[in-house]
Amino acid sequence: MSYSAETIELLEKKGAVEGDTLSVRSRGRDHRGVLMPHHEFSHPDVIVIKLGNGYNIGINIASIDSMEVLEKAGNRYRPTGEVPPSDNEKVVTIIGTGGTIASYVDYRTGGVHPALSSEDLVSTVPEISEICSVRAELLFSIYSENMDVEKWRSLAASAADRLDQGDEGVIIPHGTDTMGYTSAALSFMLDSPPRSVILVGAQRSSDRPSSDAYTNLLSSARFAVDADAAEVCVMMHGSPSDTEVLVHRGTRVRKLHTSRRDAFRSVNDRPLARVDIEGGIEIISGCRRKSSDKVRLRDAMVEDVALIQFYPGMDPDRFKDTIMSHSGVVVAGSGLGHVSSRMVKLLGRAVESGIQIGMTSQCLFGRVNLNVYDTGRDLITAGVIPLEDMLPETAYVKMMWVLGQTSDAGEIERMMRANLRGEISERREIDE
Amino acid sequence: MSYSAETIELLEKKGAVEGDTLSVRSRGRDHRGVLMPHHEFSHPDVIVIKLGNGYNIGINIASIDSMEVLEKAGNRYRPTGEVPPSDNEKVVTIIGTGGTIASYVDYRTGGVHPALSSEDLVSTVPEISEICSVRAELLFSIYSENMDVEKWRSLAASAADRLDQGDEGVIIPHGTDTMGYTSAALSFMLDSPPRSVILVGAQRSSDRPSSDAYTNLLSSARFAVDADAAEVCVMMHGSPSDTEVLVHRGTRVRKLHTSRRDAFRSVNDRPLARVDIEGGIEIISGCRRKSSDKVRLRDAMVEDVALIQFYPGMDPDRFKDTIMSHSGVVVAGSGLGHVSSRMVKLLGRAVESGIQIGMTSQCLFGRVNLNVYDTGRDLITAGVIPLEDMLPETAYVKMMWVLGQTSDAGEIERMMRANLRGEISERREIDE
Repeated sequence: MSYSAETIELLEKKGAVEGDTLSVRSRGRDHRGVLMPHHEFSHPDVIVIKLGNGYNIGINIASIDSMEVLEKAGNRYRPTGEVPPSDNEKVVTIIGTGGTIASYVDYRTGGVHPALSSEDLVSTVPEISEICSVRAELLFSIYSENMDVEKWRSLAASAADRLDQGDEGVIIPHGTDTMGYTSAALSFMLDSPPRSVILVGAQRSSDRPSSDAYTNLLSSARFAVDADAAEVCVMMHGSPSDTEVLVHRGTRVRKLHTSRRDAFRSVNDRPLARVDIEGGIEIISGCRRKSSDKVRLRDAMVEDVALIQFYPGMDPDRFKDTIMSHSGVVVAGSGLGHVSSRMVKLLGRAVESGIQIGMTSQCLFGRVNLNVYDTGRDLITAGVIPLEDMLPETAYVKMMWVLGQTSDAGEIERMMRANLRGEISERREIDE
Repeated sequence: MSYSAETIELLEKKGAVEGDTLSVRSRGRDHRGVLMPHHEFSHPDVIVIKLGNGYNIGINIASIDSMEVLEKAGNRYRPTGEVPPSDNEKVVTIIGTGGTIASYVDYRTGGVHPALSSEDLVSTVPEISEICSVRAELLFSIYSENMDVEKWRSLAASAADRLDQGDEGVIIPHGTDTMGYTSAALSFMLDSPPRSVILVGAQRSSDRPSSDAYTNLLSSARFAVDADAAEVCVMMHGSPSDTEVLVHRGTRVRKLHTSRRDAFRSVNDRPLARVDIEGGIEIISGCRRKSSDKVRLRDAMVEDVALIQFYPGMDPDRFKDTIMSHSGVVVAGSGLGHVSSRMVKLLGRAVESGIQIGMTSQCLFGRVNLNVYDTGRDLITAGVIPLEDMLPETAYVKMMWVLGQTSDAGEIERMMRANLRGEISERREIDE
């Protein structure tokens, strides 16, 4: 749906176009803000204004007493591909990969397309140039469901290169679908990075009134420059409104809502930090400090690892070929890390054939414990590796990486169970 | 670890055994409650007392000024297999299946075993006989990871039989690992039950000081009798302490923590009701009302359905045989319901071979939407059925059931996308 004839007429009469700063009087109140593009789901008689505090309000034109254009749009909401120049000595590189954050709505089809270049993207957030000098490069432009090991390695190499050249940080706008997997992959590949590598996404494309792209990007630049932190992390809204952006450890973060702007959560750990809308930074967990060290890039990964969720009724005969054709399998078991007796036998046979089997929990929150019930002890006997409180998705990525580092079975088990990148917490002495 | 010699000596001197009600004075305070069994992880010098409010406190014997046995245990904490007699006309049947709620800790091995009969279990909650007459039967005693279609059908038949004989409700103590899957299965099999069928579990075995078995069981009896509700539901702690038990709709509930007592949550819906520790019942969502109708048992299910989580790097060649050997597959896609381009092709080929493919999201919270991105539209074109805001686990169970009801492709799609048991919400007009 587009604007009604009346709305179009009003906007034309006032000479107002998307991106212009308007003053609008409605129901006795004055609103000042930027006219946002019409959204496909919006009412034809409603215009949307982005206020100075970041909130959007919708105003029905029937309620408008007066409207005035205060400032023309310029390039603010019309990406031109130019990165605003800056003489700031702190350089941050933005490596584009595609995703909603770099996409736009095609108002003909209603679909969303990954299209904006990194320069386009940066030009929508001109405030970044007050924080740092931005280098923008586009590594690829894909839907993140098409991420794979090769692309993770290419990202890790680019990030390592930029950090070695002295960048204050690297920001990677990324599709939210698999951002948690990529952040885990980069966490393992980039051993002790000297400055932060920040994955940042958006749940709404940057040309939509409710987009979180602007705030997330701006906050990530602030965190890269202003925080004494050297972490591989994910930055996304911490609440449904534009009030704060959370910094999640790359191995602990999971997308837990399909559409909310605060879809990402740290699981089994607190977030690393919080950046408020004014740029204030609160460190929540201890972060690694910045240094001038070179990056140790350890990007070897084995690709033939699987992630499989157990469910009651799962038929081992039908899963045998899939499991047996991988070098490693991470199982998201039920509860404390269980599978049916029939599946225990299959996993045991897989271990006998030299396949690494790791156990996590489909509960996501909490820790596996294979010492409580018979099923767990049978799994231990079968040679299954309990993976503590690691996310199934992180365990999947970690196993690919561990199998790329060593082929020694004892060392594989030791590394899988060790806390290498903050992906595992120490067991607490007291039950929760 | 067991009690220290000093602790054993003190308890023997006072003649106090597990289950006795004690008065203990320590650090200037008087505590009155029931002496709990020594827990394997507890300090050897600490005794644990269950207070009247349901909380447990640990008291180091070094701090004890005086101790007195107020009341001997009787059968309260020593299951005898006898269900307390009651002349209450309202009958509730408790159908045992095993699980932590009906298990005990073996203090020799430290392991937990499913062993208590339903009578044993009921006898640990004598207060139930003030609420209703209890019939107890043991259908089987298994770890719930070994649940399958046959056992779901047997449970559904037993529950239907008891409701048809006029029971006020049926309570099914069940292992928590797969309780959400069973509650979904019973929700579909029992069409419009006239009274409630309540699955109830415990995260700590009933002989442990911190067990939630007692409160959950007692609350489930109260809800079955006192609430005008006819729902298939799950009742578990709503907070870490013994303050409230939540009633979750059977198709909307998921275990989201491995060990916390409040591990179960309603996903994409509010709980049905809340039962407080005093037995007060608050209906949160509209519940179906009780009736005197007969149960419509529709227990046909097809077993060869799979649940598969998509992940980046997933190799269609290695999953082909598994997917192609099932009649239906529910995919937990990324984000709004996506898979990689390579997996889209495999799913398309599966649909062409007559396999039903349904799409849910591994985000768990929120709704799939295959109309936003190209990947989603490709999936629609490939014939994949978008499953709205249904949990992946519920969708898996539902597909088994739908394929048992009809083999007409159009009808399968219609039923999968329709809200039959509260498993799908209407799409809201406004974005969240």
